[in-house]
Amino acid sequence: MAVNVAIVGATGAVGQEFLTVLAQLRFPIKNLLLLASARSAGRKIEFAGNSYTVEELTKGSFKGIQIAFFSAGGAVSREFAPAAVEAGAVVIDNTSAFRMKEGVPLVVPEVNPEQIHKHNGLIANPNCSTIIMNVPVWPLHKANRVRRMVVSTYQAVSGAGAAGLRELEQQIKAYAAGGKIERALFPHQIVHNLFSHNSKIAPNGYNEEENKMVNETRKIFGDPRLMITATCVRVPVPRAHSEAINLEFERPMTPQQVREILARAPGVRIVDDPEKNYFPMPVEASGQDDVLVGRIRQDISREDGRGIDLFVSGDQVRKGAATNAVQIAQRLL
Amino acid sequence: MAVNVAIVGATGAVGQEFLTVLAQLRFPIKNLLLLASARSAGRKIEFAGNSYTVEELTKGSFKGIQIAFFSAGGAVSREFAPAAVEAGAVVIDNTSAFRMKEGVPLVVPEVNPEQIHKHNGLIANPNCSTIIMNVPVWPLHKANRVRRMVVSTYQAVSGAGAAGLRELEQQIKAYAAGGKIERALFPHQIVHNLFSHNSKIAPNGYNEEENKMVNETRKIFGDPRLMITATCVRVPVPRAHSEAINLEFERPMTPQQVREILARAPGVRIVDDPEKNYFPMPVEASGQDDVLVGRIRQDISREDGRGIDLFVSGDQVRKGAATNAVQIAQRLL
Repeated sequence: MAVNVAIVGATGAVGQEFLTVLAQLRFPIKNLLLLASARSAGRKIEFAGNSYTVEELTKGSFKGIQIAFFSAGGAVSREFAPAAVEAGAVVIDNTSAFRMKEGVPLVVPEVNPEQIHKHNGLIANPNCSTIIMNVPVWPLHKANRVRRMVVSTYQAVSGAGAAGLRELEQQIKAYAAGGKIERALFPHQIVHNLFSHNSKIAPNGYNEEENKMVNETRKIFGDPRLMITATCVRVPVPRAHSEAINLEFERPMTPQQVREILARAPGVRIVDDPEKNYFPMPVEASGQDDVLVGRIRQDISREDGRGIDLFVSGDQVRKGAATNAVQIAQRLL
Repeated sequence: MAVNVAIVGATGAVGQEFLTVLAQLRFPIKNLLLLASARSAGRKIEFAGNSYTVEELTKGSFKGIQIAFFSAGGAVSREFAPAAVEAGAVVIDNTSAFRMKEGVPLVVPEVNPEQIHKHNGLIANPNCSTIIMNVPVWPLHKANRVRRMVVSTYQAVSGAGAAGLRELEQQIKAYAAGGKIERALFPHQIVHNLFSHNSKIAPNGYNEEENKMVNETRKIFGDPRLMITATCVRVPVPRAHSEAINLEFERPMTPQQVREILARAPGVRIVDDPEKNYFPMPVEASGQDDVLVGRIRQDISREDGRGIDLFVSGDQVRKGAATNAVQIAQRLL
């Protein structure tokens, strides 16, 4: 039962990754429609041995489409996703446009797959940092409710798309050649530096990325009382976000219990070898669909045994975006 | 009242910074003795317009020396510091050799200057990440006791000395030239990557750096009940450590109160402009003696108003090492 698939934003970093993941996961595609802005229309893209021409996205683009992956920014989703739904497609939207909207399932398949079939034409794919945190924390939360989380992120430049990756590359090359470091995308130099995540600061003092981690996790876990504070930081790493996660559970929890739960959790790979000082790293998480989890230890700042610290690393373009969306589509079929 | 000063480890990264800071802070030096291993003996080093020859460190090196700065590793301090003390010098030791020893003051001058004069010949300079955390947290702790802290670090490669800096430089240049990335010092690639701090993992699951932050802070603050959990991470930044700090106070605390306290705190500079997305960054903390503090906000994961989040950045070679030690020596005179 192959289906007709459209990719909106096909020429972007995540759009390109959609193609890679669709091929790797052998997603049953009948016809593939690649959509982008007028500027990118006409470009040729190879997929599974065939060449496809990128077409301009219009409200009439979606006739006969069954699944439409959107990844071209919130404004594009707000403008064109309703037209896709009206044409009969199920939209899996990678932007933040509809994530917090009531009636729109926000899904990490390892966490809340039962939400997928409640859609009204729209399913939202969560923020990348949120997904990477949710995959390892959810199985622990199910076993012993997490009351509060303190998370600090180490986020790769490609979280800002292909332009972010180019900016790091150009600055590295300029630095190595002794030249001037120029900025185009980020508000600050990224090579040899790091900075608070370059999203808008909300009235509560948190930036948008941090508020997404808080609010989306509550919706995905179905636990509006879950307390989270996050500090999101951009680091000079090309790909894969890392996160230091401090968890406060309802009841005591041991590192051994955490290891046992995570060892059988889907989408998780434990990388935790204290002897060799070998733990999750972005270079090893890149290109992987699993979230790497390590530094599993009892939080020594709590005497009641209810604290656990973790360090995780996950590919935010794959599991944090394309893979998660394709997994949603797989379950939809 | 100029004094005779010795620097042990004069050719290392911190040793070199000692010279810079001694000159900048116009430390009153009568005679300067530069000591290092036999391998470095004979090297010439310029200081304040004069050329000095590095001499080999021996137990007889310290005759007539009043202040000896040690920064050549714990083993060297353990072997030679007692000889310096015996010769009548006050040793200000930048290694971890004596930090937790009873009777040895462990001093951040902004925090516990009263400890300086309790020395028995030895004063310990704290770990760099500890100092950078202590400078902004102490004035808050004094106003409203901190019960618990959750800290995640973003540590520069020069925390591992000049060799760490060289390793990042070489890997950046190899990467830019399309060549093979080689490792010598760190257990993992550092360019385009980050990893859990490369110090030994203790039986409690924390690495040495993390345990230093916990235990040293308790000693410096004189508060053995202070609860801290830390996750220390090495990032591809040449200089200045950053830290995401979550604080739980005994009583409610507002961001406005924090700002007022930090605005008049010594050694702190507030860099906190949400409008411009401008907060502490390693490129701006490098070469500075102040610790930059920003992202000052109410922790939304606590409903009792007792939580505050901060993001800080400080030069770990200066305030985290050389500057702090020279400030101790200044107060000693």
